[in-house]
Amino acid sequence: MGKYLENYNDVNKIKNMNINELNEFAEEIREFLIDKVSKTGGHLASNLGVVELTISLYNVFNFNKDKLIWDVGHQSYVHKILTGRKDDFDTLRNFGGLSGFPKREESKYDMFDTGHSSTSISAAVGMARARDLHGEKYDVVAVIGDGALTGGMAFEALNDVGYNKTKMTIVLNDNQMSISKNVGGLSTYLSELRMGTIYNRFKNDFNSTIEKIPGVGKGVVNSINRIKDSVKQLVVPGMLFEDMGIKYYGPIDGHNIKELSKVFKNAQKVDGPVLIHVITTKGKGYKFAEKFPHKFHGVGPFDCDSGEFSSTGNKSYSSVFGNTMVEMAGVNKNVVAITAAMPEGTGLDNFAKKYPKRFFDVGIAEQHAVTMAAGMAVQGLRPVFAVYSTFLQRAYDQILHDVALQKLPVVFAIDRAGIVGQDGETHQGLFDLSYLSHMPNMTIMSPKCTEELRTMLNFAVTQNYPIAIRYPRGGDGCNIHLSPLTTFKKGKWEVIGAKKGKILIIATGKMVQNAVIVREKLQNIGIEATVVNACFVKPIDKLLIEEFMDKGFSIVTIEDNVITGGLGSLVLQFVTSKCYQGKILNLGFKDEFVPHGNVDILYKIYNLDVDGIYSSILNLL
Amino acid sequence: MGKYLENYNDVNKIKNMNINELNEFAEEIREFLIDKVSKTGGHLASNLGVVELTISLYNVFNFNKDKLIWDVGHQSYVHKILTGRKDDFDTLRNFGGLSGFPKREESKYDMFDTGHSSTSISAAVGMARARDLHGEKYDVVAVIGDGALTGGMAFEALNDVGYNKTKMTIVLNDNQMSISKNVGGLSTYLSELRMGTIYNRFKNDFNSTIEKIPGVGKGVVNSINRIKDSVKQLVVPGMLFEDMGIKYYGPIDGHNIKELSKVFKNAQKVDGPVLIHVITTKGKGYKFAEKFPHKFHGVGPFDCDSGEFSSTGNKSYSSVFGNTMVEMAGVNKNVVAITAAMPEGTGLDNFAKKYPKRFFDVGIAEQHAVTMAAGMAVQGLRPVFAVYSTFLQRAYDQILHDVALQKLPVVFAIDRAGIVGQDGETHQGLFDLSYLSHMPNMTIMSPKCTEELRTMLNFAVTQNYPIAIRYPRGGDGCNIHLSPLTTFKKGKWEVIGAKKGKILIIATGKMVQNAVIVREKLQNIGIEATVVNACFVKPIDKLLIEEFMDKGFSIVTIEDNVITGGLGSLVLQFVTSKCYQGKILNLGFKDEFVPHGNVDILYKIYNLDVDGIYSSILNLL
Repeated sequence: MGKYLENYNDVNKIKNMNINELNEFAEEIREFLIDKVSKTGGHLASNLGVVELTISLYNVFNFNKDKLIWDVGHQSYVHKILTGRKDDFDTLRNFGGLSGFPKREESKYDMFDTGHSSTSISAAVGMARARDLHGEKYDVVAVIGDGALTGGMAFEALNDVGYNKTKMTIVLNDNQMSISKNVGGLSTYLSELRMGTIYNRFKNDFNSTIEKIPGVGKGVVNSINRIKDSVKQLVVPGMLFEDMGIKYYGPIDGHNIKELSKVFKNAQKVDGPVLIHVITTKGKGYKFAEKFPHKFHGVGPFDCDSGEFSSTGNKSYSSVFGNTMVEMAGVNKNVVAITAAMPEGTGLDNFAKKYPKRFFDVGIAEQHAVTMAAGMAVQGLRPVFAVYSTFLQRAYDQILHDVALQKLPVVFAIDRAGIVGQDGETHQGLFDLSYLSHMPNMTIMSPKCTEELRTMLNFAVTQNYPIAIRYPRGGDGCNIHLSPLTTFKKGKWEVIGAKKGKILIIATGKMVQNAVIVREKLQNIGIEATVVNACFVKPIDKLLIEEFMDKGFSIVTIEDNVITGGLGSLVLQFVTSKCYQGKILNLGFKDEFVPHGNVDILYKIYNLDVDGIYSSILNLL
Repeated sequence: MGKYLENYNDVNKIKNMNINELNEFAEEIREFLIDKVSKTGGHLASNLGVVELTISLYNVFNFNKDKLIWDVGHQSYVHKILTGRKDDFDTLRNFGGLSGFPKREESKYDMFDTGHSSTSISAAVGMARARDLHGEKYDVVAVIGDGALTGGMAFEALNDVGYNKTKMTIVLNDNQMSISKNVGGLSTYLSELRMGTIYNRFKNDFNSTIEKIPGVGKGVVNSINRIKDSVKQLVVPGMLFEDMGIKYYGPIDGHNIKELSKVFKNAQKVDGPVLIHVITTKGKGYKFAEKFPHKFHGVGPFDCDSGEFSSTGNKSYSSVFGNTMVEMAGVNKNVVAITAAMPEGTGLDNFAKKYPKRFFDVGIAEQHAVTMAAGMAVQGLRPVFAVYSTFLQRAYDQILHDVALQKLPVVFAIDRAGIVGQDGETHQGLFDLSYLSHMPNMTIMSPKCTEELRTMLNFAVTQNYPIAIRYPRGGDGCNIHLSPLTTFKKGKWEVIGAKKGKILIIATGKMVQNAVIVREKLQNIGIEATVVNACFVKPIDKLLIEEFMDKGFSIVTIEDNVITGGLGSLVLQFVTSKCYQGKILNLGFKDEFVPHGNVDILYKIYNLDVDGIYSSILNLL
C-alpha cells in the first residue's frame, strides 16, 4: 500500500493534497485495486476507469453532506477506498465481507443500494427534491455510464429533471462500453460528441449554406471558421441534453484530475440540472484490462503479471446455450437471438459472429428487447431472448402483455437463475419462477444438467407458445451422471429411477442432482423415495402427482427460488384442490433477500445443499 | 350513418376518394364516434383527434400487406371502423363485444395487442426485422402519442432503431397530452418544435454571430434569413431525433388529409427510420371534448348535446384517497404525492392544486416514479405513489430493488386493483398481489370499504417500511354497512362479528363484503361461519389462522386476484407448514386473462360474486 493510501483516514483529506500528490494517490489506488481484485475477483476494468473521476469528486464535493449515487454500483470500489473501507478489500464479495456494490447498511457514504442499471438519476432527483422541500443545502451527484444511459428509465429521469429544473449534477462516465461494446443511436451520438464530428457536420453544412449567399466570399467563410468556438458553444455539443432542459459540459478527459475538478466546481454553481460528459478508459492503467475490458469486467482471481485466469473446467450452461443456438440457427432460419448488452455473458458471442444479421444487441433495454421479440414472433421468427434472471425483472410487464397475453412463441433463455453468488442481493436469480408462474399462457422449463438444456432449447423453438427456460450460473457441477431427456411433452415430468417408497421428491433444475443424492442418503438409513425431475415448472404434471397422492406418498418440492409463488406453491395449490391429506414440504428460499457470498456457502446456509435437504426431509418424517 | 361510411366495405376503398370526399368522410366518422361513444362509453377525445390521421394512413399505405401498430391502442376506433367493424360499435367494450383496444383475435388488421403505453415502436421494429430477414417488402408504421414517448421503453426502441437504421415509419401523434397535460423536457422540446422557437433561438444566435464578422453587413444577414427554410432543414428541427439516427419530418397539421398523405408518401421512400411529427387536437370537432380533453379521455355514457355525464353517485376509492392525501399533507409536512401522468384518475388533482410543490407528475414513467420515491424516502420524505395496479407492473424491478431491498418507507396507493371492466385484459388489476407478495420486506394491505382506505393511509405514512395498499375501481358499492377499522397492527386481521361455526372465511378488500353476505346465506341454511377481513395480505395473521386450525375449522380464502401467488397461496403455504389436515379452498381468478366487460358480469362469470362464492363453499362442504 502506498504512502498516501496507507494513511488515508478522512474523506476530506484529499482536499489538502496538491495535484501531484493526487496523481500519485491515483496510481497507488490503481495498484491496490489490481493487487486486491487479482486475489478476490471482482469488478476490475470499470473501477480502474474511474480512479481520477472519483478522486476529483471527493476533491470538490463534501460528501459528509453532499450525496453521491453510483449507477449500477460495481464501479464504487474507489469510493469505498476513500470512505474508510480499504482494509476490508481482502473480504471483497465473500459471505459476510465487503459488498461489491454500494450498500446503505455498509457505510453512511453509500446513499443508495444499486446493482441494476439506470436508476441513479431517479434516486438522485428524489434526494434533491427532498432537500429542496426541507429547505436544505447540499449537492446531489449521480454518476452514470454511457451504457446505463440507454436504459429507458434513465431517459424518464432526464425528461423529468430537465423539465422541472431540479438542481443536481449528472456525471456521464462515457467509456464507450456497457459490459461489452455499447450500441444504440445514443452511443453514436456520444461518439460524435467525443470526436467533434457533430460540430464538423454542422460546420460543413454551415459553410456550404453561407457560400451560396451572394456577397459572401471565402474570406467571410474563413472568418466564420475562426469564431468556431463560439458557434460550437452556441449551437452544437450536447444539444440532445440541452433540448431536454439539461445544461451540458463536455467532453472532459476523465483521467485529468485538474480539469475534472475545475468542471465539477463550475457545476456546483449552476442552479439547475447539469450533465458533465466525462471520457474514461475502462481498465485504465492495466494493459490486459485496457485491451480486453469486457474480459476484465467482472472477474475471478487472475495472475497480475500475465492477466490470465485459472480455468473453471466445467462446461457452463451459457456455453451450451451458445453452441446450441448456433446449431439451431443452421437448421431453422427463423431462429434469431436477442441480448440486452450481454453478448459474452449469455454465451451468444459465437452466434453473433456466425449470424450477425440474426443477432440483435439492443443495449441495456430489457423492456424493448421483450416487446421487439414479440413483434418478431408475430411475423414468424423464433426469437430467443438470452438474459439473466435478475435483469429480466425489468421486463415483467412486457412479458405479461406483449408475449403471454398474445401467446407468442418467444423463448426466454434465463441464465443465472438461482444463487449467483458474489454479486449479492441484486443479482441473485431467486424470483423468476414467482414472477413468471402466475402469468397465464406461460410455460416454464428448467434442465437438470447442461446437456438437457440443449434438448430443451431444440424443443422450445418448435413450440407455438411462450416458453421460459431457466438455468443456473456456471456448469452443472454434477457429482453424479444424469441422463438428459431427449424428448419433451408439455407438462410431463421425468421419474428418475424406480417409483418406490412413500416419499415423492419433486425437484427442478440443479436441485434434481441434490434430490438424487439425498435419495441415496435416505436409502442408506432404510428410507425409500422417488425422485422426479420437474423439467416443466409450469404446467405441473398433474397426472403424475395424482398417481403418487393416491398411493399415499408424502410430497417434497425443491427449487432454487423463493418459495412464495414458485414450483412448490403450484404443487401445493393443486394437491389442496384435490383434497390431498398427506404431508407436504416446500423447500426453497425463505422470504428474504440473499446476500453476496460463495454459491456453495449460500446453498448450505439456506439449507438447500444435500445435507440441508436431507435434514428437512427427516424432520418431515 | 353518412353515405360514405354506410357503404364502406374495403380498407382500400379510401384510395379512390378525392380530397373533398375524404374530408366529408372524416366528418361522418366523427359524428359516428360521438354518437356511438355517448351511448356505450369509451375513449372519445383521443379518437376524435386521429380521424384525419387514420384516414391519411389508409389513403397512402396498403394495410393488406403493410403493418400498422397503435401505441396504447385506445385511439384505434377509426382504424376499427375502416377495417370492417363499424357495425360492432353498439357492443363496444361490452362482454363478448368489440374491444376498446386492438386485438389480434378480433381482426387481421390488428397486428399487436396493446393497452399499456410505449410499446409500439418495439413491436414495429420486431416486425420490420422479420420482414428484412425474410426478404419481404412491406411498410411498418407505429403511431405513438407524445405522452407515450416519455415512457422509457419508447426511448430504448428509438435508440435501437436509429442505430440499426431499420426501415420503418414512426408517426408521433402530438396532442400535447397524456391522459392529462403532458409533462417533461421532451414535451417542452416538442412544444418548441411546434412553435418554431428552437429555430428562432438558432436564428437569433446565428444572426448575432454573423453580424460580428468583419465584412458582413445587414444585407447578408437578410439574405441569410431569406434562405431560412434551407437552414431550418439543415440544422434545426428534430435534431433530437436526427441525433439518434432517425429522419425527422414535421411538424405537420394532423387534421389536413392532403398534407398528411403527401408526407406519408415521402416517408415510404426513405430507406431507414422516419419520424413524422403530426400535431393533432384531442377531442377535435366536439366542443366539450376539445375544451376538457382529459374529461373525455375515457368516458361512460354522456349526453351529446350538453356533454354531461350521468353521475354514478358512489363515493369512489380514488376520491377518498385524494381527500385523505390533502388531509395528511396538512398534518405531516413530509407527505408528498407522485403520479405517472394520472393526476385526475388517481384522485390527486386537489392535492396538486393545494400542494403544488409536494406534487410530482413524472409523465408516463412508472419506473422513474418508483425509484425517485425511494430517493425521497432516503432523505426523510413520505412519498405516496398513486398508480393503477396494471401500470405498476412496469416498475416490478424498481419496487423489488429500490424500495423493498432497502426497506424504504414508500407507500404504493394501488388503485384499480381487481376487475376494472371495460378496458379488458391489459387493464385488469389481477396480478398485483402475486407480483408483490413474493417480495421480501413488502407489506400489503387492502381496505374492505372506502372509509377504511382513509385510516389505512394514515397508518401507512407513519410506518417505517414499504407498504402497498390496493383498492378497486369505483366506490365500494356496499349493500351492507361495514365499520371501518380505525387502528392497525402490522399483520393483524379483523374478525367481523362472532367467531363461530366450522368454516373460516378469509377475504380481502372488496371480497370482504361478499364474504359477509355469503355468511348470512349460509346461516339461512343452518351453516355457521366466521368471516375475517384480511386487511393485511402480507404478512398474514398466523396466530389467528392457527387458532382456527386448532379448532378444526375448514378454511376458505377469497381475493380478487389470480390465485397463483396471492393471498390464498400465502395462507396455504403457512397452514401446510403447520401440518394442517383440514379442508382448504382458495377462491380467486384462474390462470387466464380476463377480457373486457361489465365488472359485475365478470365477477359473476368467474364465480366471485356472492352466488359463486356461496356455491363454491357448499361444494367444499
